[in-house]
Amino acid sequence: MKNVRVELINTGTEILLGSIVNTNAAWLGNRLFEAGFRVERETVVPDGYAISEAMRESARRADVVIVSGGLGPTSDDVTREALCDVCGVDMHRDEHVAEGLRNYFKRRGISIAECNFKQAMVPDGAAVLENPNGTAPGLVMPASERLPMFILLPGPPSELKPMVERSVMPLLESMVDGDIPRLRVFRLVGIGESDLQDLVDDSLHQVQGLEVAYCARIGEVDVRLVGNEVALKQGEARLLTLAGAYVLRPLGATLERAVVLYLKGLGLKAATAESCTGGLIAKRITDVPGSSGVFEFGWVTYADRAKTEMLGVPAEVLEEHGAVSEPVVKAMAEGALERSGADVAVAVSGFAGPDGGTPEKPAGTVWFAWAFRNGGTVTEMMFYPRDRESFRQMVSQKALIGMLAARKPQAVTE
Amino acid sequence: MKNVRVELINTGTEILLGSIVNTNAAWLGNRLFEAGFRVERETVVPDGYAISEAMRESARRADVVIVSGGLGPTSDDVTREALCDVCGVDMHRDEHVAEGLRNYFKRRGISIAECNFKQAMVPDGAAVLENPNGTAPGLVMPASERLPMFILLPGPPSELKPMVERSVMPLLESMVDGDIPRLRVFRLVGIGESDLQDLVDDSLHQVQGLEVAYCARIGEVDVRLVGNEVALKQGEARLLTLAGAYVLRPLGATLERAVVLYLKGLGLKAATAESCTGGLIAKRITDVPGSSGVFEFGWVTYADRAKTEMLGVPAEVLEEHGAVSEPVVKAMAEGALERSGADVAVAVSGFAGPDGGTPEKPAGTVWFAWAFRNGGTVTEMMFYPRDRESFRQMVSQKALIGMLAARKPQAVTE
Repeated sequence: MKNVRVELINTGTEILLGSIVNTNAAWLGNRLFEAGFRVERETVVPDGYAISEAMRESARRADVVIVSGGLGPTSDDVTREALCDVCGVDMHRDEHVAEGLRNYFKRRGISIAECNFKQAMVPDGAAVLENPNGTAPGLVMPASERLPMFILLPGPPSELKPMVERSVMPLLESMVDGDIPRLRVFRLVGIGESDLQDLVDDSLHQVQGLEVAYCARIGEVDVRLVGNEVALKQGEARLLTLAGAYVLRPLGATLERAVVLYLKGLGLKAATAESCTGGLIAKRITDVPGSSGVFEFGWVTYADRAKTEMLGVPAEVLEEHGAVSEPVVKAMAEGALERSGADVAVAVSGFAGPDGGTPEKPAGTVWFAWAFRNGGTVTEMMFYPRDRESFRQMVSQKALIGMLAARKPQAVTE
Repeated sequence: MKNVRVELINTGTEILLGSIVNTNAAWLGNRLFEAGFRVERETVVPDGYAISEAMRESARRADVVIVSGGLGPTSDDVTREALCDVCGVDMHRDEHVAEGLRNYFKRRGISIAECNFKQAMVPDGAAVLENPNGTAPGLVMPASERLPMFILLPGPPSELKPMVERSVMPLLESMVDGDIPRLRVFRLVGIGESDLQDLVDDSLHQVQGLEVAYCARIGEVDVRLVGNEVALKQGEARLLTLAGAYVLRPLGATLERAVVLYLKGLGLKAATAESCTGGLIAKRITDVPGSSGVFEFGWVTYADRAKTEMLGVPAEVLEEHGAVSEPVVKAMAEGALERSGADVAVAVSGFAGPDGGTPEKPAGTVWFAWAFRNGGTVTEMMFYPRDRESFRQMVSQKALIGMLAARKPQAVTE
């Protein structure tokens, strides 16, 4: 197949200043990739003359240049002008678009300001993409001998996304044939990035036409395979053979979703008893729609007194061992299991920092316990001295991973 | 002052494919802007040769080029090599860094893979920035006659952010004098963006040399003022006079931090009883270091049975009114207040969706109650039919805002 090189330019000073996060770029990158196109570069430039500069640079490399933003009615919206500049064309007022603008304002009962008619100006040779969700129409300038195709889209996600689905994807899909490489993402837990690479990288790289990439986050690693159907199938088989024990199911699921679906599949229920994570584990479980089927009770026992009153941890155990200790998390997990009637209860108690901790148990120390209806309580200690947010994320990660050890109660033989 | 032109290059195929949102760019843009620097362009390139191409292009325009990502131990991490290529230098193994790597792994009780020592390779002439939160050190290549300064940072936000605070900001700040325009951000709750603008915009625009911008998020609005010390002072005074009741204190604080500091200042304690937010309110409170001084007890009563057993909500009230109702949240809040001994307890119960809800109470419906030791329980209903994540964020937002109504108990007159 012919490889279509796509570049993306986002305009907007507010993106560069960090006032808004560039979610359009992520959404577009993902949407295009699903369809077999790869964004090869993203550039963010401020409102103003930098837009035409960036368009010229992208034009030298790409077959399609998508530009978002700068189509509004105000003086800092100059993407239309930049397109004329780069393509060496003039613009004209499109009476059909002007009529649409008049109607748009009329329907909303607001009077149209003269500056709005700027949005009816169309560069000569460009086609108009209708915008049912806003005032700025999109524009497509077909490729010429020396220039790529330019696609201009409005900045607001609520206008951009429907326009991409309705007008841009069909246009792009008509440019390629069917045999395009696809992406498959696997999420793994319980193994670090470099150990994983030692385990699978050589084998995956032997698969012809398969691209392999790793992406590590706190307590998990993504493996991303790109290739045609045959290469992907081979890659997946190799990955699952060598590292299947670490791969979350369903393939590509987040950890919390994998836990909820795993427990649901076995008809099990979970409970949480959290100290240092302060509700994060319960929050992650309940991020998953339908989690009410597996999760009913959660305790946030942030104070010692709460551990005793809410979960029945004996005051003398707290006194003797301290809140961050094996006997305390064990009693928390077992108290939560008993009081909730769940099949697995996880408890965590640790020093998140930056303050707190003792010389023997500095900030970053955490004890875990998982109590199983089906037999026994497992405990574990971890030392993970990081910033508060990373620490809590890692602790919630490990707590959730441990829940995947829950098993269905054995049928009692009569 | 001399204007320092900064450009940002983020490497990572996973950003271009939309697998991860480029939050580093927003954070860096904002952090640099606070200190008076403006990012003039951001470029995202895939892992591989495109990095050096982008570095060369930025080098032609900028005084400082910050590159994030691609410093890891795997084969697709090639930012170090790109720096050598662009600057025409070799690299050497830095034994001090290698020793640090060995210690990093030893402290965690894991064996070090040979590929990790790739991270001890330092381009000739570059300085090393220590990374206490990961294995990849940062690198600074000083500006030369023909090239700008290059700053190479690790990709994971938990490693990048502390390194920027500790090493990069002091370096950049030493490059400029004091009279640079600064940014001041005010966070407001309880008022929408357009009402706020009606209230303050004219007055703020009368201040000479003051730039004003608004940024709305779920349940809060930022006002961003840019200017020199004099303009900022005037702007702040006007904003506080006109809209002070909505401004979170300390100025610029997040809502959860404002709540924790407010309660701490009055010596009050809070408790949470959550249904649809599933632990998010407790999680947000405990995001704040030192929150253990004001928060001890949290309940996640996701099931009806949990509301009865954990908080004493009468089963017949649940039966008669349903879980999403005023009598139920009232009983939840009052049960939580009583059982925790706190001064204020918030309870929420709603239908987050996408499933659930009834014809009379569709997904998006939520009831709130705040019970105060100091007298009475306040209840409120909201309808906010959005996606699950936005809904839960908005509910936690409103729940926290309501806690700011807690007052110190009156001294009893003898």
